[in-house]
Amino acid sequence: MTAATDRSPDDTLPIDIDDIRAAAARLAGVAHRTPVLTSRTLDERVGGSVFLKAENLQRMGAFKFRGAYNAVAALDPDVRSRGVVAFSSGNHAQAVALAARLHAIPATIVMPTDAPPAKLAATRGYGAEVVTYDRYTEDRAAIGARIAAERGASLIPPFDHPAVMAGAGTVGLELFEEVGPLDALLVCTGGGGLLSGCAVAAHALSPGTAVIGVEPEAGDDFKRSWESGQRVGLDAVPRTIADGQQTMMPGELTFAVARQRVAGFALVSDAEILAAMAFAFERLRVVVEPSGATALAAVLAGKVETAGRRIGVTLSGGNVGLGQFVELFRG
Amino acid sequence: MTAATDRSPDDTLPIDIDDIRAAAARLAGVAHRTPVLTSRTLDERVGGSVFLKAENLQRMGAFKFRGAYNAVAALDPDVRSRGVVAFSSGNHAQAVALAARLHAIPATIVMPTDAPPAKLAATRGYGAEVVTYDRYTEDRAAIGARIAAERGASLIPPFDHPAVMAGAGTVGLELFEEVGPLDALLVCTGGGGLLSGCAVAAHALSPGTAVIGVEPEAGDDFKRSWESGQRVGLDAVPRTIADGQQTMMPGELTFAVARQRVAGFALVSDAEILAAMAFAFERLRVVVEPSGATALAAVLAGKVETAGRRIGVTLSGGNVGLGQFVELFRG
Repeated sequence: MTAATDRSPDDTLPIDIDDIRAAAARLAGVAHRTPVLTSRTLDERVGGSVFLKAENLQRMGAFKFRGAYNAVAALDPDVRSRGVVAFSSGNHAQAVALAARLHAIPATIVMPTDAPPAKLAATRGYGAEVVTYDRYTEDRAAIGARIAAERGASLIPPFDHPAVMAGAGTVGLELFEEVGPLDALLVCTGGGGLLSGCAVAAHALSPGTAVIGVEPEAGDDFKRSWESGQRVGLDAVPRTIADGQQTMMPGELTFAVARQRVAGFALVSDAEILAAMAFAFERLRVVVEPSGATALAAVLAGKVETAGRRIGVTLSGGNVGLGQFVELFRG
Repeated sequence: MTAATDRSPDDTLPIDIDDIRAAAARLAGVAHRTPVLTSRTLDERVGGSVFLKAENLQRMGAFKFRGAYNAVAALDPDVRSRGVVAFSSGNHAQAVALAARLHAIPATIVMPTDAPPAKLAATRGYGAEVVTYDRYTEDRAAIGARIAAERGASLIPPFDHPAVMAGAGTVGLELFEEVGPLDALLVCTGGGGLLSGCAVAAHALSPGTAVIGVEPEAGDDFKRSWESGQRVGLDAVPRTIADGQQTMMPGELTFAVARQRVAGFALVSDAEILAAMAFAFERLRVVVEPSGATALAAVLAGKVETAGRRIGVTLSGGNVGLGQFVELFRG
């Protein structure tokens, strides 16, 4: 945890707490202020107090709505009217589609052909045009950039963008406002938008909080980058049920924040993710998708110290189709 | 809906709004003030505004905690210390077990042998002693009364008791406090505790609300009783997936309230209940058990008028085991 002591002033980072507060103002009355769930069963099991920020109950079912809406809202109106483009493995797609619809502008979403059918359908359901690509052979960033250039539309990146990070940071802002200081905050980590936003919020509102990113074991690019002090990429798309965390390298901006504001990382297996989804189903009575369950999985699997501590956990999304869910658990 | 116009003053009914307010005071800081969920998808589909009171996110996973806790809390301390007894097909069992544990008194629960394993395990998990019986051949009321007499313990009935009804009525109280007047309120109905409590709350806080009980088609004892003006019983335990609504006759007290304060009833099939559970899973990202989904099922299946109206819906419970859920949907 040495890097966590290497703290920088906020003005050297891509976002600060004022950006998050500005995002919160844009999101007021638009995003849900999601509930913080608690479970005495969970607390007894881990010997601490766990506060679960239920972003699976956010509009379109994931925290991603916050960043996408904030980014679209922050565009100059003339620019915004020409529409937006996004590439995403799922929730960011729906988030941008919904944010565009709420602004009455067109959205084009570049999605992998093997994205969960429920996510493809939901994105189209929000009125977006969907362009598909093969995520094992094609470069989604290049496809998105080309479409944006052709149409004069603005690309809304899934995580590596100050307004997206600041929007995601409102998750941490709301959590600290509601429950006060925490000893640790576990954040589901893909590209690092939620991680970096929550880390900046924690630094301002609860500076003693150890912010910990949680990745699937197969996709530990952020952990490896953080430990080596520079961004390192994976050789191949990680094979994990956590389809929202199949990023291959941290974002440049999100990594810059994580280097200064994150205390460490934890990894969880697909089996541990499934156990967390089952716990959420039976004991919390909420639906959490695999990527959204990784932080809870880290708590349940004992990957972080919980005894006598106050632990925040993001449940970052709940978009798993019923058929997919049944397949995962039919055994 | 003629009976709904046959209104009595509250002082002729077993409970009034002051009983519900007293219950709310006892439950403050003990029960969760559950969130009210909304879904634009749902609103667009039914052409109205639907407000879902998520009692599946209540402690122990169902509204039943409210009534059980209120009834235990209302006992004279000397009497209470000798413990409580309950008979229940599930959620009331867990509710009484938890209420007893919170009061540090013993609980004995009489449960059917074929109750969902998750509910049997959860009841024992709350520290209660469980006595099982065959619900198709034995009389649970007689067994409960015998145990109560032997042990000097107080029987906490599942619904037909003023404190249980008043506790359940806090569901309606909270809903009206949060969303204001409604055109209709659909209430999952078994023995009528939630229905009667919510109907009394509506009469006081939103007198224009048509309170509608929703039963599974196979267990329409309350609808038939209400239509005939007197309590009528079913010939056999209704066969439905809605295991919390397998009551065979309305309660005496709950029926007295329903005659005066309820505007009508709707019935839903098991297939409609499953569709509502699937909708809750995929679009609301919450887990609802079959009995807890009947009111939502009535809305989705068009059993009530929704166009242009503000509709309250109880999601009354979320205790369905993961294995049971997968079986219901594996198709």
